[in-house]
Amino acid sequence: MELWAGIDVGGTTTQVGLVDASGRIVYKNTFLTGTSPEPHELIRALSVWIQAKVQGLKGRLMACGIGAPNGNIWSGCIEHAPNLTWKGIVPFAELTAARLKCPVQLTNDANAAALGEMRFGSAGNKKEFLFITLGTGLGSGIVTDGKILYGHSGFAGELGHVIMYPGGRDCGCGRKGCSETYCSATGLVRTYRELTGENENHTSRFIYEKAREGEAEAVEAFDITCRHLGLLLANSVAVTSPECIYLFGGLSHATEFIFPGTIKYFEENLQQIFKGTVQILPSALPEHDAAILGAVALVHDFREAYTL
Amino acid sequence: MELWAGIDVGGTTTQVGLVDASGRIVYKNTFLTGTSPEPHELIRALSVWIQAKVQGLKGRLMACGIGAPNGNIWSGCIEHAPNLTWKGIVPFAELTAARLKCPVQLTNDANAAALGEMRFGSAGNKKEFLFITLGTGLGSGIVTDGKILYGHSGFAGELGHVIMYPGGRDCGCGRKGCSETYCSATGLVRTYRELTGENENHTSRFIYEKAREGEAEAVEAFDITCRHLGLLLANSVAVTSPECIYLFGGLSHATEFIFPGTIKYFEENLQQIFKGTVQILPSALPEHDAAILGAVALVHDFREAYTL
Repeated sequence: MELWAGIDVGGTTTQVGLVDASGRIVYKNTFLTGTSPEPHELIRALSVWIQAKVQGLKGRLMACGIGAPNGNIWSGCIEHAPNLTWKGIVPFAELTAARLKCPVQLTNDANAAALGEMRFGSAGNKKEFLFITLGTGLGSGIVTDGKILYGHSGFAGELGHVIMYPGGRDCGCGRKGCSETYCSATGLVRTYRELTGENENHTSRFIYEKAREGEAEAVEAFDITCRHLGLLLANSVAVTSPECIYLFGGLSHATEFIFPGTIKYFEENLQQIFKGTVQILPSALPEHDAAILGAVALVHDFREAYTL
Repeated sequence: MELWAGIDVGGTTTQVGLVDASGRIVYKNTFLTGTSPEPHELIRALSVWIQAKVQGLKGRLMACGIGAPNGNIWSGCIEHAPNLTWKGIVPFAELTAARLKCPVQLTNDANAAALGEMRFGSAGNKKEFLFITLGTGLGSGIVTDGKILYGHSGFAGELGHVIMYPGGRDCGCGRKGCSETYCSATGLVRTYRELTGENENHTSRFIYEKAREGEAEAVEAFDITCRHLGLLLANSVAVTSPECIYLFGGLSHATEFIFPGTIKYFEENLQQIFKGTVQILPSALPEHDAAILGAVALVHDFREAYTL
């Protein structure tokens, strides 16, 4: 039985799964990412688990894909990830390959999820699309000519760090006015706080419930978030001209408050030639398995190369 | 003698040239684009000229590349070009191929120029770069993985139509706040008019001369233009992560007022990981031949395909 491993490194927990040739998750598990200054302990734990499961199935591990914040496809390193305790440049792919003794590839989580949408979701026949994750921040993967746009550095596709409003909201990246400070769950929370004048930081879930109850400020906070997001996406179309745009992640599940508004402002801001031609769609990836499937999608075509 | 034809269709004049295998322009000529509602007359005149020159050299015409406003690589059509008298969708490549009886490709002028920089300029070894033309508007070609990013529609790479300032200056595309209304020769002229309060529209050349004389408003108009352009380019890096950025076109020749300022604001706006890593360079294409060389670059590798 041929198996592929997918690892998704997060700030608090790391998910791992084994996937078969059909894309079914055979086993999965969650580990604490840990607080140690080095990643060796986590990599050892992940590898031991993967190898035990592969042996238990009398399987063969073909390759391992990894999604991680600030993951660089070219170097296989996690570079200066602000929400991980490992500092500097961590050769995560190389360390993992040394233990697993199989090909390993690593990229950032949004790129991995975009590949997951292509291989296991609903973008299978699409060669040009944007994949947007709306969570604490805004992540994105740009697929062009059927491949992720990595750019020279490996860090292309960061739509969340386009400066939309110079001098605007403070961003975690150290600059001001980045799109993710407006177009994300955190952005929604900040907008709601500005509208209500409350000091408290409510959750996006709370604001969603309030909007469903018809509270004007909550509805308006969503509308403003859609306005920012619609403009960002329309500008992205001018640059990359995708066939469609997938929205994924927690905030995208507030469907009735995100999709109609975003589509409205998106169409308003599009150039004439693009109006009505670019669909904004919900991702078809299952939310809980998306991270593992995305990571596996990085290497799921590695079978041919290694069985020949 | 193997020859390639390059055609650059402009609002007033159309340039045509014949280029040899080494990239040398053997002959060139300029035609009036004309005011007729159909392009047939222009295409006939261009074809007659090309065929006569090829025969005179006892040469062989390998292929023809065309750069044109709103040129679509996928369809070979010029689509709804606002500054041409031909309306609607014009199958310019097909009509030209029918006369020349050789392969013909067509794209927009900025994409063609980006390819020209790769084949005949200084981007030969670069696989990821941006090419920006600063003229009446702002044109751009995005090269990623060694190829132009055309996108699903064929119209990707329009950095000039990213809305930088919602509700801002009126743009020729019918929207407001597009980057080219700020970051172009026309943008400079508008900024200067705002600063001086004059009603007159001076040329960018006039403002350049004034800046050289030390006139405060002219110097400030350039500084503001650089601030807009630096931000636009920094945002483009977040999306496409190029190795370098080439500036081309009339305004880029105001070197001392464009490059230092643009680089300063560019670096200020870059994410930490990109600071100091992306060069902004002058194009190495000769200004007067760039359009022809760019058009030829579209098809200059068509030799192998057709002599085998």
